[in-house]
Amino acid sequence: MEVVLIGSGSVATHLGLALQAKGISIKQVYSRNVSNAEILSKKLDAPFITDISEIYMDADIYFYALTDSAFKSILRKIDIPKGIQVHTAGGIAMKEFEGFTSNFGVFYPLQTFSIDKPVDFSQIPICIEACNEEVQEYLLELAKLLSTKTYVVDSEQRKKLHLAAVFACNFTNYMYDIASKILNDSGFSFEMIQPLIAETADKIKTLSPYDAQTGPAVRMDEKTISKHLIMLNKRPDLKKIYKLLTKNIYIRHKKN
Amino acid sequence: MEVVLIGSGSVATHLGLALQAKGISIKQVYSRNVSNAEILSKKLDAPFITDISEIYMDADIYFYALTDSAFKSILRKIDIPKGIQVHTAGGIAMKEFEGFTSNFGVFYPLQTFSIDKPVDFSQIPICIEACNEEVQEYLLELAKLLSTKTYVVDSEQRKKLHLAAVFACNFTNYMYDIASKILNDSGFSFEMIQPLIAETADKIKTLSPYDAQTGPAVRMDEKTISKHLIMLNKRPDLKKIYKLLTKNIYIRHKKN
Repeated sequence: MEVVLIGSGSVATHLGLALQAKGISIKQVYSRNVSNAEILSKKLDAPFITDISEIYMDADIYFYALTDSAFKSILRKIDIPKGIQVHTAGGIAMKEFEGFTSNFGVFYPLQTFSIDKPVDFSQIPICIEACNEEVQEYLLELAKLLSTKTYVVDSEQRKKLHLAAVFACNFTNYMYDIASKILNDSGFSFEMIQPLIAETADKIKTLSPYDAQTGPAVRMDEKTISKHLIMLNKRPDLKKIYKLLTKNIYIRHKKN
Repeated sequence: MEVVLIGSGSVATHLGLALQAKGISIKQVYSRNVSNAEILSKKLDAPFITDISEIYMDADIYFYALTDSAFKSILRKIDIPKGIQVHTAGGIAMKEFEGFTSNFGVFYPLQTFSIDKPVDFSQIPICIEACNEEVQEYLLELAKLLSTKTYVVDSEQRKKLHLAAVFACNFTNYMYDIASKILNDSGFSFEMIQPLIAETADKIKTLSPYDAQTGPAVRMDEKTISKHLIMLNKRPDLKKIYKLLTKNIYIRHKKN
């Protein structure tokens, strides 16, 4: 199997490494950024290009691991005769490929990646979508090679997964960021709260988040809440977040 | 050492179990709720009372693991001659004990507890505060018996820890809850997003939350953001949260 990676960010990196670990060598890496292209090229022991017109034309599969706008711009510039073209994004509809190629699909790993943090790809849910049965079979087989968790998910459904992921990952990480700021401003290290973060994430493996909810908001402990709001007087942005989330948690648990 | 637990909720339960595991037997459990008192009494093989006037008077230490309002109400009803009285709350100042006893302090485990979910107490940061050096020494020794992570933290600082914990745990769990709702409404199981949640929590062991931030907000991917906002049109409450957090993440990463 010949693979071309279009992109050199965290998704391209970990996808490339996962493929390589399964014995699939990467034929070529493209990135418009020379230094990023070089770094990934070294990691994968694969040649790189920075000019998209030099793309290798006879690969079996092309992975677009790009931001949404870069994806559309690159797609316009490539005319691949035969290989399957897939993107790896949660939020881009498959139909964006229409008119550019007849062999296409989506290969969306539902995970957060940072370039230098290793991940266990076998535990990552991979969501597949394809333009026809044949391509779907091909993508599903590839996904099963990399992960024990594979799903066929259409664009509409994938958008919902992506939205859920923004809450579960991006917004959650921002909560950690705020906690980190409060701790650092008070002379504590962020490490002190890491067991709490680990346990909060661990809990929902055996309890629903609804049942796992604790804290002043769910027990409507007004005294603690008003103390906290006073402490946030100098950070009206965080105070606004505290108030809004507290109100929502309260309503959520009062109603049910 | 003779211990009395005042309260039968999740903190009392896990503290009691942790003490018991270290060979310290619980002399008595108090709860105004008979059935909760019975359950904990069985778990700890300790007698229970539901009338606070029957409290055992000669224990070495009394743990108040109660909500803030219950704490103050019970404190008024007890007159312990000698034993050390401590509460386990993040948000209650130590000085609340003043006038009721001369041997007091705080024994605050910085963790989230659910009654039926076992925890590894040895990894829980325990924050100690005491009315004098002697009590501090006693509490610190007890804390070190239970955990490898012990700290001396005054009431003002503990309030800040507690505030950080609300963001890192309670609000984070609410983000999971929202994600769970979106998934269930779309026919997906919550399990599908658990690897993402686990990785998000794992990441910040090696990256700062600032550096770990990913998602449409940090890269100001307006197209994805506006798609998500449209998807949330039927849930104005969640839309408001999405907008506020997105704006804050954007500003946070633009400035720095």
